Amino acid sequence: MERGHPCRLSAADRGPGTYAPAVRLDASNLSALARGCALLGAGGGGDPDVSLTMALRAVGEHGPVRLVAADDVAPDGLIMPCGLIGAPTVAIERVWNGDEGRMLRDAVETLQGRRVDAVMPYEIGGANGLLPVTWAARLGLPLVDADGMGRAFPEMQQQAMHLAGVPASPVVLTDGRGNVVVLRALDNVWAERLTRNAASGLGGVCAGALYCMTGARARDAVIAGSVSRAIGLGEAMASASRGGSVAVARALGATLLIEGKIIDVERYTDGGFVHGSATVEGILADAGRQLRLELQNEFLVALEEGAVRAAVPDVISVLTTHSGDPLVTELLRYGQRVSVITTPAPEVWRSAAGLAVVGPGAFGYRVGHPSLGAGGDG
Amino acid sequence: MERGHPCRLSAADRGPGTYAPAVRLDASNLSALARGCALLGAGGGGDPDVSLTMALRAVGEHGPVRLVAADDVAPDGLIMPCGLIGAPTVAIERVWNGDEGRMLRDAVETLQGRRVDAVMPYEIGGANGLLPVTWAARLGLPLVDADGMGRAFPEMQQQAMHLAGVPASPVVLTDGRGNVVVLRALDNVWAERLTRNAASGLGGVCAGALYCMTGARARDAVIAGSVSRAIGLGEAMASASRGGSVAVARALGATLLIEGKIIDVERYTDGGFVHGSATVEGILADAGRQLRLELQNEFLVALEEGAVRAAVPDVISVLTTHSGDPLVTELLRYGQRVSVITTPAPEVWRSAAGLAVVGPGAFGYRVGHPSLGAGGDG
Repeated sequence: MERGHPCRLSAADRGPGTYAPAVRLDASNLSALARGCALLGAGGGGDPDVSLTMALRAVGEHGPVRLVAADDVAPDGLIMPCGLIGAPTVAIERVWNGDEGRMLRDAVETLQGRRVDAVMPYEIGGANGLLPVTWAARLGLPLVDADGMGRAFPEMQQQAMHLAGVPASPVVLTDGRGNVVVLRALDNVWAERLTRNAASGLGGVCAGALYCMTGARARDAVIAGSVSRAIGLGEAMASASRGGSVAVARALGATLLIEGKIIDVERYTDGGFVHGSATVEGILADAGRQLRLELQNEFLVALEEGAVRAAVPDVISVLTTHSGDPLVTELLRYGQRVSVITTPAPEVWRSAAGLAVVGPGAFGYRVGHPSLGAGGDG
Repeated sequence: MERGHPCRLSAADRGPGTYAPAVRLDASNLSALARGCALLGAGGGGDPDVSLTMALRAVGEHGPVRLVAADDVAPDGLIMPCGLIGAPTVAIERVWNGDEGRMLRDAVETLQGRRVDAVMPYEIGGANGLLPVTWAARLGLPLVDADGMGRAFPEMQQQAMHLAGVPASPVVLTDGRGNVVVLRALDNVWAERLTRNAASGLGGVCAGALYCMTGARARDAVIAGSVSRAIGLGEAMASASRGGSVAVARALGATLLIEGKIIDVERYTDGGFVHGSATVEGILADAGRQLRLELQNEFLVALEEGAVRAAVPDVISVLTTHSGDPLVTELLRYGQRVSVITTPAPEVWRSAAGLAVVGPGAFGYRVGHPSLGAGGDG
């Protein structure tokens, strides 16, 4: 464990086996990235399907995207973390034109009075792990092999950069049509509040850049290796996918919580989030059991007979039984055959400070954490 | 009629009698300004009571505010129109610290890369006619004797500057606590939409600066003489106030629509506005009649047995019977004795282009206009 770098992912965090970090993103690894992001999305971050198509087209037109370690960005180089912000139920109906990255970059450069040197996904989950690839390709900028969450989380203060003391402001948001909103918030919790509100005003979902920082600042503030890690996870999943969700879970070293079918889904979009729940009824060896998943953009907790079986910040993912492909919450339907699995939280979130920001208590659940022994009474 | 300047108020518009424009605002004329603004607020713009106290204190501490004609601002001087934006039902519960003007000015100067040379009320109605006086006093800046509405209107594209083609963007908003939002909207209707949304996010009401322009641009874009006009109206009202609302109506040359008591009030705050209605039942000579006022921040239409008796852009005001003081919509109560009066719209709004922006049709009323013979089918 690299204790000297609390935000770095340990080798154990990187999932099954070891793999060399990718040096460029192109048609050879973007599908794996999309699959890994779907897993780490924990049901959120937006459906990666369309964004994978966009990324493939962008690298086809503009060439591969160079992947650089945060450590390799010049100390005074400016990194722009970015992605979509809003309710995935809206995002799935909205197609982006790919030019949002330029609008964000231009506004950030005007605000900062300097050039943006690299793009970074603020979360390595769902569409938000892919769209920054499209934007980087179109801008001719490298992508930083890192993110702020190590997965997807619903709120904008749920970032390693927040824990490290980097301000989210100035936050730049755009609807991609030409409307641009700049927020200078009192603190990062206000930044989330104003960002969420603005996303609603911009149509329910928007593109955003926030927590912009120098390479020097990023070194101890980001979760390093996230993009490579997602590719590695995606490759492992692809290799095992013929065996369906159980084989994929095994390949990932994940905990299989239940194998069954969805018997209830509830979703409502409110305040810039989608909230709801899904209930999975066990089949085969799990017959007679029921697992209830509660969600706010992402799956937050898995409950069985009142007991917490899994909880944030651990990653709860729902896989299609036959293919092992992860499902986003907005595509859950009655009758689907699925397996629910959980994988450990990125290291940075296992500290008391991390759990205060992303543990069950941060979402209003006053429950103990099944794997971390904390996070209740938050 | 000064036909050459369609945005200028004609002498007839200036109300009863003539009066010299004030040259400075101080304790001798701020009470009259507040009273005139209450009338022109048409029930909206915020209750001027607290903002009068703030303005009196500000000129006491920082000296009188110099009132300058738009024509007297240097052609390249920067004018900052400003005021509160949001729901008056929220504004009445919120006390401002007076420093919002500095926050707006600082943000505008950063955005424009130049000094702000003068402050201007964006609407000469309610609190919004007074707060810019406080801000000007504290900033040591002159106040432009003009506004963008000639009264109060609920929406931000309902400005003479909009008719003249001045962009509202960049819009600067602040909650006065340190959160600052900057909006660059596609057009002025988007600016209203994003501003309204941001006002909700900043607590339901916020301070804002928009339609910033040079002195040269202002010359044909603003409604000139608004501050002086409000003082003149306020002085005429004060002289007649011993005779109550009927005497005040007479002194103003206003049309008295009904004298009666409020028998029903409905108000709800939604989407950054207050909507609702109030019903006045006639007494004395008006016994047996009922007048219904519909409102969106301001009174929009007065209806009697299905017929429109008065409508925007004409100013509909509700006066307390015994004192002739105007009432804001958020202070209407069951049982109050009131008179409802109407005064003509500022000249700029009487054109077809003006009516398209502020006529009954702009608010969804498909009715003819009782005094302008237009504004329906909008």
